[in-house]
Amino acid sequence: MAAVLIPTILSGGAGTRLWPVSREALPKPFMKMPDGRTLLRKTFDRAAALPGAGPAWIVTNRDYYFLSRDELADAPGGDRTRFLLEPAGRNTAPAILLAALAVAEAHGDDACLLVLPADHLIDNESAFASCVAQAQALAADGWLTTFGITAKTPATGYGYIQGGDAIAGGGRVVRQFVEKPDLARAQQYVEDGNYLWNSGMFCFRAKDMLAAFESLKPALYQAGVACWEASRAKTAGGDSIELVREAFDACESISIDYAIFEQSPRVAVVPGDLGWSDVGAWNEIASQYPADTQGNRAASEAIFVDSTGCFVHSHDRLVATLGLQDVYVVDTPDALLVLDKTRAQDVKKIVEQVRARGGDKHTYHVTVSRPWGTYTLLQEAPGFKIKRIEVKAGRALSLQMHYHRSEHWIVVSGTAKVVNGEKEFLVRTNESTYIPAGTRHRLENPGKMPLVMIEVQSGSYLGEDDIVRFDDRYGRT
Amino acid sequence: MAAVLIPTILSGGAGTRLWPVSREALPKPFMKMPDGRTLLRKTFDRAAALPGAGPAWIVTNRDYYFLSRDELADAPGGDRTRFLLEPAGRNTAPAILLAALAVAEAHGDDACLLVLPADHLIDNESAFASCVAQAQALAADGWLTTFGITAKTPATGYGYIQGGDAIAGGGRVVRQFVEKPDLARAQQYVEDGNYLWNSGMFCFRAKDMLAAFESLKPALYQAGVACWEASRAKTAGGDSIELVREAFDACESISIDYAIFEQSPRVAVVPGDLGWSDVGAWNEIASQYPADTQGNRAASEAIFVDSTGCFVHSHDRLVATLGLQDVYVVDTPDALLVLDKTRAQDVKKIVEQVRARGGDKHTYHVTVSRPWGTYTLLQEAPGFKIKRIEVKAGRALSLQMHYHRSEHWIVVSGTAKVVNGEKEFLVRTNESTYIPAGTRHRLENPGKMPLVMIEVQSGSYLGEDDIVRFDDRYGRT
Repeated sequence: MAAVLIPTILSGGAGTRLWPVSREALPKPFMKMPDGRTLLRKTFDRAAALPGAGPAWIVTNRDYYFLSRDELADAPGGDRTRFLLEPAGRNTAPAILLAALAVAEAHGDDACLLVLPADHLIDNESAFASCVAQAQALAADGWLTTFGITAKTPATGYGYIQGGDAIAGGGRVVRQFVEKPDLARAQQYVEDGNYLWNSGMFCFRAKDMLAAFESLKPALYQAGVACWEASRAKTAGGDSIELVREAFDACESISIDYAIFEQSPRVAVVPGDLGWSDVGAWNEIASQYPADTQGNRAASEAIFVDSTGCFVHSHDRLVATLGLQDVYVVDTPDALLVLDKTRAQDVKKIVEQVRARGGDKHTYHVTVSRPWGTYTLLQEAPGFKIKRIEVKAGRALSLQMHYHRSEHWIVVSGTAKVVNGEKEFLVRTNESTYIPAGTRHRLENPGKMPLVMIEVQSGSYLGEDDIVRFDDRYGRT
Repeated sequence: MAAVLIPTILSGGAGTRLWPVSREALPKPFMKMPDGRTLLRKTFDRAAALPGAGPAWIVTNRDYYFLSRDELADAPGGDRTRFLLEPAGRNTAPAILLAALAVAEAHGDDACLLVLPADHLIDNESAFASCVAQAQALAADGWLTTFGITAKTPATGYGYIQGGDAIAGGGRVVRQFVEKPDLARAQQYVEDGNYLWNSGMFCFRAKDMLAAFESLKPALYQAGVACWEASRAKTAGGDSIELVREAFDACESISIDYAIFEQSPRVAVVPGDLGWSDVGAWNEIASQYPADTQGNRAASEAIFVDSTGCFVHSHDRLVATLGLQDVYVVDTPDALLVLDKTRAQDVKKIVEQVRARGGDKHTYHVTVSRPWGTYTLLQEAPGFKIKRIEVKAGRALSLQMHYHRSEHWIVVSGTAKVVNGEKEFLVRTNESTYIPAGTRHRLENPGKMPLVMIEVQSGSYLGEDDIVRFDDRYGRT
């Protein structure tokens, strides 16, 4: 019987080309697809449904821990998921090395890692399952296995894998990895038939990957082991392991392809026609929505008049297009992008300009996620600020105090448990309380349903940094 | 010395082609131009600055009375402005007939009306003043005078006036009026040089226009006189005369051009090169803003990357365009229009679809004007609704009661005088009060500055029609 299969999800990537929906504080893995699930959740569900799948590990930035955990909270198998938290991104090799060390310790070094980036879509899940079974069998024989996507079109945006000799029982030896080609070469690759898109998904036993690192990248291996030792020692149980910054920074920032797969003699590829795409830009998002007879697609309320090939992705606004061809409209509460669809790869140019202007529309949305829930800025003007605050069941904000602002709280849904100075009391739906400046206070949702509250802040300074935290359940004091 | 000149501003027109900014509840005359003034205000200021101008009369729908009055409140001469309020639009002839009757009674029938639509822009104000002086001289000789704009381009969107013999002292006899031509004819007109655009501005003595109506349109004249008698009898002083609906409905709906100018033998035209445009569609709005080196224009924060000839008009959102040519983006808090600039005349098609979908995005904005100020819907969800309420200095909402909702009021700027059940008290900035369902209440701004308040409504039914008004200063009980 095969060793346990550990889905190892790499949930990183800023998704800059998907601005204004993808932003630093809520990047691509948290973008919702047409079925209402995020990319992360879809990747998780797809992996969890595989036969014999064990607990998943998520490798992500520590800033996304609460978001990720909440995202998987109600997923089957979500409760046994574990997190490996990076202080910063250092490409895929350190992430996979640390994951292999963690999985080896938790599940034994025969355990098989199935590495999946969180921003892939796969239409054909049964073909995927069959490829994974093949890859798992290869891994059990000591192969470091890649997944190669049957190249039907001469894509220039992917690296290619040239397949070599067939391996008994399935898969092929990898002859070589090829960088992203120009169009002429890509066309040759499609005609040749032996070239496959490099999907960035991998399958291998923990011990084989660790051995590969030890022999091919000894310095990185040593740094990774040291980081692991330092990090696990500091981790006091729970579902997450936070990687120690200095130790993690000592690991070379390099991709797993360069570090291992292009160097190792024991690399196999499993070819597959998976309906695979990586969600890199707005074209891929648009293609997830059905087209009308004019080729227009909409993720929200839209009116298309004399328009063809357009796409509308809006938050809650009605969007109308008139006389347009191949124009994409991406609307969020505070920023709007309108682009020609052929320019989807260049959205970075816009984000650079947004960043250069200052402000934070490249980083934050109007709705900001916190470990306890979210807040949404409804209006801001000199002297006051209005927020909608949603606290998840059982969560609490920190015990805090503001020097410069007072706050009016009105509960519009659920019941709040409030600390206000020396008093502690409940505020029910359609009740309110007032927190004067300088008063210690805490907001908690003791119930089983979300608590929704309107907060009206009043004061001459209303910056988020006017906060003194006395106690916080999420380690933010 | 010339008789008094009475600017008579026709402030109507839905401005459907300027959706989503122009909507039924806040139509075109209230749209702000780049200098921050509305079209109505600009028209008023232009007229008020004319030498010898007397008090202005505004002919508008009764629904726009408070808006119009507030719009002119701080304009020089705004305080002596009078309003003729229509129950519904019946084209220009009844409006001008009633205005002539009103002006004759208020200022004597030698008084000279200068009729100006509220949606024109005129760049050359000194040329305008000089044309008005000529027109006034002609009017004093009994001419019904039109203003003809020197046709430099073969526009097909305007009617034309063919000028005939010169009149001693200035102006020309009108030989004929011509309907909107096709392009070939329009080109002939430009080459001919005797054809002028019919601007829709007019100048005449009250008595001459009344005599023209009496002889050319006797039935309409009789209906107009009857309407005037019925309406003035009901008007109890104040700055406005509300036209009685039944009597006004009895007046034929017809344009002043058809009814009078195309029939009368005493029609003159004053030609002028005024930098005139009527603001009909987004092209004219766009052209009011300066273009960058790529021909892009913006009325708000915008980023243009690899774009040319684009225009951005947004409320408070950052708008970015990428790889677009000649695309206009018109953004409001609840609806967004993206169009090819050559299709600006077809915005009506969009509005038809918006109307067909139900809802009220063709009628109302998120911010709604009331006689006492405005309210802005900030958020709505089952069980609650959040509004920002702004009450103008000295104004008050009605004394009212709601069956199904309670209201939390938080004052964020200014001081409110509140009636809450049996009590009356002040609520100052950063103070709040609570109005339970079923309680009579009134909100008033007794101060000299605007009062800004956040209202959180709570209840199972939150429709605007859950209101019982006991007393209202604006006649809405």
